[in-house]
Order: sequence, then C-alpha cells, then structure tokens
Amino acid sequence: MGRRYRVGILGATGTVGQRFAQLLEDHPQFEITAMAASDRSAGKPYSEACAWKLSGRIPAGVRDIVVTPIEPPMDCDIVFSSLPSSVARETEEAFARAGYPVISNSSSYRMDEDVPLLIAEINGEHVRLIERQREKRGFDRGFIVTNPNCAVVSFAPPLAALHRKFGVESVFVTTMQAISGAGYPGVASLDITDNVFPYIAGEEPKVEIEAQKILGSLTDGGVVKADFTVSAQCFRVNVVDGHVASVRVKLRSSATLEDVVAEMRAFPSLDLHSSPETFIEVTDEPSRPQPKLDRDNGNGMTITVGRVFPDNIFDYRFVALSHNTVRGAAGSAVLNAELLISKGYI
Amino acid sequence: MGRRYRVGILGATGTVGQRFAQLLEDHPQFEITAMAASDRSAGKPYSEACAWKLSGRIPAGVRDIVVTPIEPPMDCDIVFSSLPSSVARETEEAFARAGYPVISNSSSYRMDEDVPLLIAEINGEHVRLIERQREKRGFDRGFIVTNPNCAVVSFAPPLAALHRKFGVESVFVTTMQAISGAGYPGVASLDITDNVFPYIAGEEPKVEIEAQKILGSLTDGGVVKADFTVSAQCFRVNVVDGHVASVRVKLRSSATLEDVVAEMRAFPSLDLHSSPETFIEVTDEPSRPQPKLDRDNGNGMTITVGRVFPDNIFDYRFVALSHNTVRGAAGSAVLNAELLISKGYI
Amino acid sequence: MGRRYRVGILGATGTVGQRFAQLLEDHPQFEITAMAASDRSAGKPYSEACAWKLSGRIPAGVRDIVVTPIEPPMDCDIVFSSLPSSVARETEEAFARAGYPVISNSSSYRMDEDVPLLIAEINGEHVRLIERQREKRGFDRGFIVTNPNCAVVSFAPPLAALHRKFGVESVFVTTMQAISGAGYPGVASLDITDNVFPYIAGEEPKVEIEAQKILGSLTDGGVVKADFTVSAQCFRVNVVDGHVASVRVKLRSSATLEDVVAEMRAFPSLDLHSSPETFIEVTDEPSRPQPKLDRDNGNGMTITVGRVFPDNIFDYRFVALSHNTVRGAAGSAVLNAELLISKGYI
Amino acid sequence: MGRRYRVGILGATGTVGQRFAQLLEDHPQFEITAMAASDRSAGKPYSEACAWKLSGRIPAGVRDIVVTPIEPPMDCDIVFSSLPSSVARETEEAFARAGYPVISNSSSYRMDEDVPLLIAEINGEHVRLIERQREKRGFDRGFIVTNPNCAVVSFAPPLAALHRKFGVESVFVTTMQAISGAGYPGVASLDITDNVFPYIAGEEPKVEIEAQKILGSLTDGGVVKADFTVSAQCFRVNVVDGHVASVRVKLRSSATLEDVVAEMRAFPSLDLHSSPETFIEVTDEPSRPQPKLDRDNGNGMTITVGRVFPDNIFDYRFVALSHNTVRGAAGSAVLNAELLISKGYI
Repeated sequence: MGRRYRVGILGATGTVGQRFAQLLEDHPQFEITAMAASDRSAGKPYSEACAWKLSGRIPAGVRDIVVTPIEPPMDCDIVFSSLPSSVARETEEAFARAGYPVISNSSSYRMDEDVPLLIAEINGEHVRLIERQREKRGFDRGFIVTNPNCAVVSFAPPLAALHRKFGVESVFVTTMQAISGAGYPGVASLDITDNVFPYIAGEEPKVEIEAQKILGSLTDGGVVKADFTVSAQCFRVNVVDGHVASVRVKLRSSATLEDVVAEMRAFPSLDLHSSPETFIEVTDEPSRPQPKLDRDNGNGMTITVGRVFPDNIFDYRFVALSHNTVRGAAGSAVLNAELLISKGYI
Repeated sequence: MGRRYRVGILGATGTVGQRFAQLLEDHPQFEITAMAASDRSAGKPYSEACAWKLSGRIPAGVRDIVVTPIEPPMDCDIVFSSLPSSVARETEEAFARAGYPVISNSSSYRMDEDVPLLIAEINGEHVRLIERQREKRGFDRGFIVTNPNCAVVSFAPPLAALHRKFGVESVFVTTMQAISGAGYPGVASLDITDNVFPYIAGEEPKVEIEAQKILGSLTDGGVVKADFTVSAQCFRVNVVDGHVASVRVKLRSSATLEDVVAEMRAFPSLDLHSSPETFIEVTDEPSRPQPKLDRDNGNGMTITVGRVFPDNIFDYRFVALSHNTVRGAAGSAVLNAELLISKGYI
Repeated sequence: MGRRYRVGILGATGTVGQRFAQLLEDHPQFEITAMAASDRSAGKPYSEACAWKLSGRIPAGVRDIVVTPIEPPMDCDIVFSSLPSSVARETEEAFARAGYPVISNSSSYRMDEDVPLLIAEINGEHVRLIERQREKRGFDRGFIVTNPNCAVVSFAPPLAALHRKFGVESVFVTTMQAISGAGYPGVASLDITDNVFPYIAGEEPKVEIEAQKILGSLTDGGVVKADFTVSAQCFRVNVVDGHVASVRVKLRSSATLEDVVAEMRAFPSLDLHSSPETFIEVTDEPSRPQPKLDRDNGNGMTITVGRVFPDNIFDYRFVALSHNTVRGAAGSAVLNAELLISKGYI
Repeated sequence: MGRRYRVGILGATGTVGQRFAQLLEDHPQFEITAMAASDRSAGKPYSEACAWKLSGRIPAGVRDIVVTPIEPPMDCDIVFSSLPSSVARETEEAFARAGYPVISNSSSYRMDEDVPLLIAEINGEHVRLIERQREKRGFDRGFIVTNPNCAVVSFAPPLAALHRKFGVESVFVTTMQAISGAGYPGVASLDITDNVFPYIAGEEPKVEIEAQKILGSLTDGGVVKADFTVSAQCFRVNVVDGHVASVRVKLRSSATLEDVVAEMRAFPSLDLHSSPETFIEVTDEPSRPQPKLDRDNGNGMTITVGRVFPDNIFDYRFVALSHNTVRGAAGSAVLNAELLISKGYI
C-alpha cells in the first residue's frame, strides 16, 4: 500500500478539524499524530478539548492525542489546516517555512498568485505553482496548497465541464448554504430557525473570484484566470450539511442540452483513495438534488447536479450541490494531499 | 364608514381561506357571511370543518357559519376565491356568470387577456379590463379579477419601481419559498426538515410570465405586456411564512444606486384600508430582509427589499421579501376588493 | 388613566430586554426612558447597540435612547431587570438600595426568603414580603421583586388551580423548551436543527424548587413552602417561542376529570392592563396546545392546557404551554409592576 | 457463510420498507427477491414505484424488482412486513397460513397472546410461542413474529436491565418522537416546523402496554406479563430520525446509581449479524444522548442512555434514545429474522 504519512491538524477542534479526524480514521495513507488548537485547548487530550459535533463518537485513534499550540514544530509529515482566516496567514507560512507541506482549507492564500487553489479533478496541474512559490518565498521543502471556498466547490465542477468544451462567459449563482459552513457555535438558532439569512460575511466576493483561478490556465507566467464573470448572492438556510447553488450560465459557443449534460457526466474522476466513483452526477429526477438526500453521494465527494434546463435569458440553468464540510472542506484537502503524493510533492 | 359588503369565501378551509377569515375579522368594509368548501366539509360549521393552522383561535364571527358546497348562489355580495386551480376555472366562471364579483387568488385566469392581474399599487388601472371581460364572456354584473402568484408578488413591486423610471430589460430571480405556500398538508416534513427542495410544480413558468402582464400598459386593445424577460428558479425552504427572492436586474437606461433605492422608496402606497403605510421598504442593514423578522412588516402587506448593490454582470442585485399568504394571497385579494369598491366596480 | 411611570431596562439589548421594549411600546402606565446594557453597548443609541431579533422594527420610542452602563442612578422611576444571573445579584441590590423598585426576571433573588417570587394571579399577596425585605436589607424606598423561571410559569398555574382545591402531592414534569429561552446568540443552530438537546444548564433544579415557593402560604414568618415535590427533566427543542410541559400530578384528595378541568378554567385572571382575559385556557382538542398555534393566546399571557386525562400511575396528566419570553419573562415582569402599582408599592 | 434466504418486503415503498431495502443491501444471509406494495405501485419496477426518501440512491439490487400486489404467493422464503395496521392483520395471517415466516413491524398482532413480541436481546426465548401459535391458528410452516412500537424500543432495553436485577414497579415516560416515525408524507411540515405536536394517534396506549409483554416471563401457559405500570405522554418533535424518551423509574429493591448504570452496561448484545457491539451504551456526558449525534450508534442498533440520575420522587431518571426506523423498525425485524434462523425456526 505504500508509505504512511503522519498528519497534523491545525484548528483540530473546529467543525472542519473534526471532519478531518473522521475522514482520516481509516485512511490507508494518513495517520493523525498531532492536533493543534487554540491556547484554551492546548495541553488537554483531544477528547476533552473538543466538543464533538459529528454523528457518533470521537475516533479512538485521536481521543488521547494531547492538543498542542498552533506553531511548528509538530510531530507530523504533513499539516492540514482549517484555521480561521484571521490567524491562518501568518501561521501557515510559519509551518511552510519550517518545512511542512501545508494543505489549507483557509481563505488566506487562495488568491495568491503562487499558491495553487485546487479542485484535484479540475486543475491538478496547478500544483506546479509550488516551485514558483518556494522560489518566491524562500521555502525549502515546505509549501502551501489551498482548496476553495465551500460554496464555490458546489458549482465550479459543472462549470469546468462546460468551460473546457464550450467556454463560459457569465455565471449567475445564488447559494443556499448549510449551517455547518459557519463552524461552531456559528449560526445562532434564533437566526435560522423558521428563517433564511441573507448575509454571510465576506462570502459573495470569494464566490465571485475563486472559480476563475481554478478554471484558469497554467502558463510559464503563472495561472491566467479564466475570462468569465461570476455574480453571487449568498444565503444561509436551515440545513445541517450541503450547499445548494442555483446557477445560470452563458456559454461562448452553442451547446445542446444533451451536450451540456454529457459534458458534465463525462468529466473524469481521479484514481485516488478519496476520489468518488462519479465526480459529477447529473440526475434528471425533477426534485433533485436535495441536501438531505444527496450530500453523502460518493461519501460526500460527488457533486450532484440536477434541473439542467435551457434558460430564457442565458443559455442554461441548473442546480448543483456538494457536501460543504467534506467536498467543500476537509475531504477536498485530503484529496489534495493524495494528489500531491501521487505527483511526488510529498 | 360607508357600506358594508357581505363576503363569501371559496376554499374556506384551506390555508389561504383561513387567512381570509383572519384578515377580515375586523374589516370595516367586509363581513364574511358564507364559507364554501369541498363536499367533505359542506354542511358542517366552519369550526368543525376547518383544521385551523394559524396562530390563535378561529375568529368568533365565522365559527358557526355552516360550510356550503362551492357553487352559486351564495349568501354574499362578493366572492373571494382560493380554490385549487384544478377546479377554479369552471367554478369561478360560474360565480361571475351568476353576478358575483370574483376576487381570485387562483392561477386559472391570471393570464387571460381580459382578466386583470392586479397588484393594486402597481396596475390598478387594469381593472378597466372588466368591461372587456363582461362583453367577451357575456357576464352581466359579475366579473373575475386575479392577484398574482405569491412568489411574483415579492419581486414585482421593486421591479415596477425600476421599470417605470429606467426600463427593465432582463431579470434573474431565484426564490426561496415558505412551506405555507403549498397549503395544508402541503409539504411533507420529511421533504423539508434539514433540507432545501428544488422543485415546486408549475411554479417557475408562472413566475416567468406574470410580471410582464402586471407591469404591462393598458391600451384600447388590452394590456400590452412589458418587454422584459424573467428567468426563474424556485426552491422551497424550511420557513413557515415569507417568500424570499434573490434578484438581478438589467435596466434599459443607466441609474445610480441612489436612484434605484430612491425609486423603490418613492413608489406610492394607496389610501385603502389594507394598504400598508410603506409599500416598498428598503433597508440598508446588511442582514435584512429576513422572513422571520420582516414578513409582518406593514401587517404583512409591505414588500421589504434589502442588499441592493451594483451587480457585476447585470446592473443591480437585491433581495426582496413578502408575506406569501398575506401580501402574496389573501391580503392582496382583500386589497383588490377595496380598490374595486373605490373605483365603483363593486 | 392615571400616572405614567418612567421605566429603565437593565440588560436592554438581550432577547428579554427587547421583549420589554416591544411590550411597553404602547403601555398606558409605562414609558421607557432609560436603557442599560454592557459596557460594549453603553454610549450608543439603542437602535445601534441592539441586534433586534423580534418581528418588525425597533419601537420608535426607544430607537434613540442612549444606552447607559448598568449602574444607578438611572433616569427612571422603576427598573425592569433581565440581567444574566452572574451579574444580577450585586447590580439589582445596588438599584434597590438606591431607591428603585426592581422588577427582576433574573434567578438571583428568586429563592431568597424575603423576596417575592410572583405569578401575579397566583400569589400576589406575597408582595407583602417587601416590608420584611426592606427591614432586613435596609432598603428605603427600593425593593426587589422577581418572577419565576420561564419553564415553571408553564405548569405552575394549572398546578395552583389544583393545589388550592385538592392539594398537590407530587409532580413529574418534562419540559420541551424554546430556543429563545437561551437568549442570543444562545443555542447554536448545529445543536438544535434536526435535534433535541437534553440538557439546559441549571434548569432542572430551578424547575424543581420554584413552584413550592410560589404556591406557598404567606405567614408572619414569611412564605411557608407548599409541601409537594417536583421532579423535572428539561429539554431544548427546535421551537422559536413557547415552552411545553408534559405533566403528571398526584393529588391529596380525589377529584374527577371534570373537577380538574373546572378548577383550571375557574382560576381567575386579574383586572390589570397586561392580564389576559383568560388566565388558564383548557382545550379539549386532542392536538393542542401547540407552541406555534397557542403561544400568543391572550397576547402571550394566557397559559394553555390540553390533553388533561386520568393517569395510570398518578392521578392526572396534562400538557401545559406558555410563551417563554412574554408570560415567562418580560410580560410577567410588566404584570408584576402593574400589580405593585395597584397595591401601592410603586 | 451458510444458507442465503430470499426475502420479500410487504409495504416495500414506505419509509420502513425503504429501510429494509437499505439494511439488506449487503446482508450476508438475506437477499431481497420480492417487493409488494399497494395496487397503485404494483406492476412497476421498484425504482419507479418508490419515492425514495433515504440518503443516497435506491440500492442497485432492488431497483428493477417489479412490485407485486400484497398477497401470497410471493417469490421468497421469508416475509418482512411494514404494512399499515389497517391491512396488516388480514394480510399477515394470509402469508403465515401460506407457509411464510412473517416478521412484522406492524402493531396488529403484537399483543396477541400466541405471537412473540420480540426485542432479540431481551426476550429471544419468546420465540417458543410459535409452536403455540401454529397449533392455535392451524399454521403449518408459517408463523408471525412482531417487533415493538418504535417508541417502546427506546426505553424497554434499559428497563429490562433494571427489571431483571431490581424489579421495576412504575415507569413514567415522555417521548419526543421523530417525524420519520409517521411515514411519508406523514407529518405535515406546517404542523412541526417551529412546533411541538402533542398528539400521535394511538401511540400512548401502545407505549403503555407493550413493555410488560416484552419483559414478561415465558411459562407453559404463555407469557406472564411483567407487573409494572407504564404511563406515557407522546410528542412529535422536529427531528428526522431518533426517538428520545425521558424516563423516571421506581424499583422494587434498592439500587445505587453505580448499580443502575452497571446493569445497563452489562446487558449483553447477541452474536448475530445485525447485533451492535454494545446493546445499551450509557454515557455520562451531560448533554447526551442527542438524536443527531447518537441515533447511528452501532449502525442504528445501539440504545444510547444518558443523564442517569437519582430522582426526587421515583428512584431514578434517565434519557434513552434509539433510531426509530432502524432499531425501532426495520433493523429489529432483520435482527429477529437472524435470531429465528439461529434458533432453527426458519
């Protein structure tokens, strides 16, 4: 099965940190050996430091790991980070500089021109920015790789399928995002029970800029962003897990409905441990996708698309769904690490 | 205070029928004297026939009204209809033919060229279609007037404000609609708890066509529809009352953000009993409008708009909210009746 | 209409503070003239300091009141307190010592033997403890009066009705409590969406001891507690407002079902502004009371009881409901102030 | 691995029928070969007849099974029934008479003196009633075995642990039951969003009588019911899966808190495929059990108990939780079938 890597989690007690612990429980390549969290938690066993909010119990393998402060050195080969953006920038750089591959779920470095912003199936070749990054920042063995905002992950894959074939010109996206995306305690129940909350701080700009980098072309001068425009309105809804994106897209060349569906379905998955069998599942059931029924498709790593129809202003409309803390966060980070191993960067 | 009218409710036991009963409880012009519902209910006192689902108790004035079958004659001067569209067409015509003004919340006649589709503040002059209707259909004193789909009501008012000043060219709307919009039993809890439901049967086409008629111009030849296009994606969310619309709009002439907000705020309300003080309330709080907090603005008759910003593809984006069973159904019908009285049609 | 009193709110920006603002908006006897909150809020106008979470807008009359620190003197005749218990004890005493009548919703003084714990309809005569209190604590004109825990308020009234006639011996109560009871931000949405939360810190002991004092007899030596035992299990459920209590009661003397219902219905309301027409409403509809439908009965001041049946272990079982932030908090405090005025204490 | 049995599902398209399909997907002993449902569904492939409401897709192995009417013969060795009680009595007897072992989740036969009402870990020896049943009803090879009401399953196991050691005298139970327990469409969202529903038709009597039979002793004359009394109040809450029971228990002999917990923990699981590793898990975390976090413990087959404390009226109180459509329905039926095979009845 090959080498096993010792993994450290930054922000281990948060909701994404917990997902890391859950997803890595029986992973063939990774074993969690270090957990770092805020000073309040440091020094306690993980089982005590962490208010576990996922179904079931804390995985046995991490219960007794003593939480450390968030600073290098850590007893591990790779670092997964789910730090809040307020502290991520400085801390992740410190880890990279200390020689750790940093696989980050934070927003801090996503748009830096020398940092890969990866959806492994879409732009895996962007990992080659790592060389540029090491040179520019003077990192030796370490580096930083990021995965996108959880809402972007829901619609960027079908967009990628259309963009590579027909060219995308403009995209309207309206998101209905799950409460787990805000962490814990996160969204107050008084704000979301019997309610829709029309504002997620900082979210709309992120959703509007990240897809162009992900779908951009890697050149000698770096990533040339894809030349389409995204307009985003983002809402919080009363759903535990699973972000829904309502999408209209204008293409640069004409495509039939059959073409559109076929391109999405044909977009290949990868042959890595966390890759789902189907990357983009397109359903023609009129009432799908639904967060409750579809978020766990492909163990939470499949993007489910439905209601693909011609639009009367743009070319097509569709609804896309992804599991925001798996594909939209911890799961994508793990997949990125698997990709980096397969490409020899780790 | 002037004359009082005796009112009959068709579909009296449904969720909209119950709203009629609630809204008319202390109305200065109307008094409910007749309640009609399906054969299953006919013959029973309303308090027995009706599974009351609104806060509080069945209004004392209607508890003992014996429910009748849905057919003329009824013991009343005006008929409010909230019949399911499957039976509305035939039944409402029968009542109009029998001489009753029929103020309908059903979709059956909304797009008929001789039937007014009214939002009283926007296109009250369309009531003049009634003459054409009577002539064409051979109605004597009776007629049919309709109010729009509940989702349309949330965004048509701000659109009207922009259209009359700047001209609207294209509109993308994504709705997040409340469960009360589906009636009772309506949406199964298993379909909406911890979920977003991406399909509402027949809704998207209605939302795409009704606004053009409402904002159309009355000419000698009838209503000339407004020449803009609406693209709609409609979702059900876990909210009891209050439809939210996420909107982007492309205008025909340029407008500053201040212009846009000012036009919405300046759109006048009417001087009728059910008119809210403010027809369109525009808020600049970043996290408003919210169904839980804003649906009851203006006793449920105010449209609340927020998050008005320039859009990066179209001209502007905003979020609009209305109470779907008050402004979006029973309340609008009552307001239409008040308008028709003020204009001498009743 | 008599004299108007100037009222100050301690903890004005919290969920109960907001209810005070809402309930006093058009009150004939009270006018809010002062708002106190934490240092973070002090110095700002209420409209800015307060994240308003109730339906509708901040009442016009309080929008511009500048929030002050929570310490005497305050520009008012009466103080309503909804301070967290951690600070209430010291602060409320300071206000009482400074001469203010303190009508408190906090738990700090509820069980002090010289402090009235009031449900105005049940034990209004306990206000006479004020003399004892002034003497003991050396208060001059000021005093402290409290209202009970919000969960207690739901079942103490029907219990009082049974106790005065038949004597209560033992009571099992299981509560299902609304999220607003925890304040804002309060319950995290991740803890309550698709969930029941089986623990409310400190709640079960409060629910087990307060009713005996409320139903106790005032003697020269103070309140002799009623000699029954309450066993409480308390749960948080996904409801915005309205606490439900599932109750079994063992009586000291025999009573028919008709007796039990009749005693509850016969328990008199008061003739004060905030008194509901019916204090205890008993319904025989099998599926009532429900928080969504019954919490606003009597403007949130009526206790609604249903499902009164013989029990197969104890004597009777029933379900009781009250609005936790109105009758269970701000509304009861306002009613207590009205009572104190009527009895000459204010 | 031993023989594989061909299984037929009665009521295959309902929520419990769907759970059967899900749980049997990779079962080592069972393979679904027949699906029966109402006439409306008969003749269609299962994937078309069934509105699948569980996470993920319909298992591949059953998608194409053509649904048959609900009558013998069926192409299978064993029949699992989740028929509504209105049709179960007659139909299940017809299948038993036709020679099928009928493992039923319906309430029809549960209290018949010759029909085992099984929780496999508790009263597996009651299967010996089958001989009596065959004799009395003239069944040849067929028979009927039942599992309890889903709410009973949550508290009967900890009760069994206490009863066999200390004797149970009286039990108060208040249930908070999930919406999936009512099937589909089942509970209307308008009845449960922002609400607690205090009535479940027919539930309280079932909850009050079934435990005594389950914990009863098998004698030559049949099952002698356990001599304790259960008082039940049953509520529906807004939870997808997982019934919560709030319990107080009075014992016949004294027991320390440690004894009580130890007896629950010591109650053995079985060595069957669907048995969980731990039958009764007792947690001392103050805020557990929770439906969202604990319903899937032991793949939905573990009973989770928490908040075990001395009670101030009875001896002890605790909170118990089970997954209502797994342990409370389909999972228990499957376990019963495994038990019957191991005992040679199938």
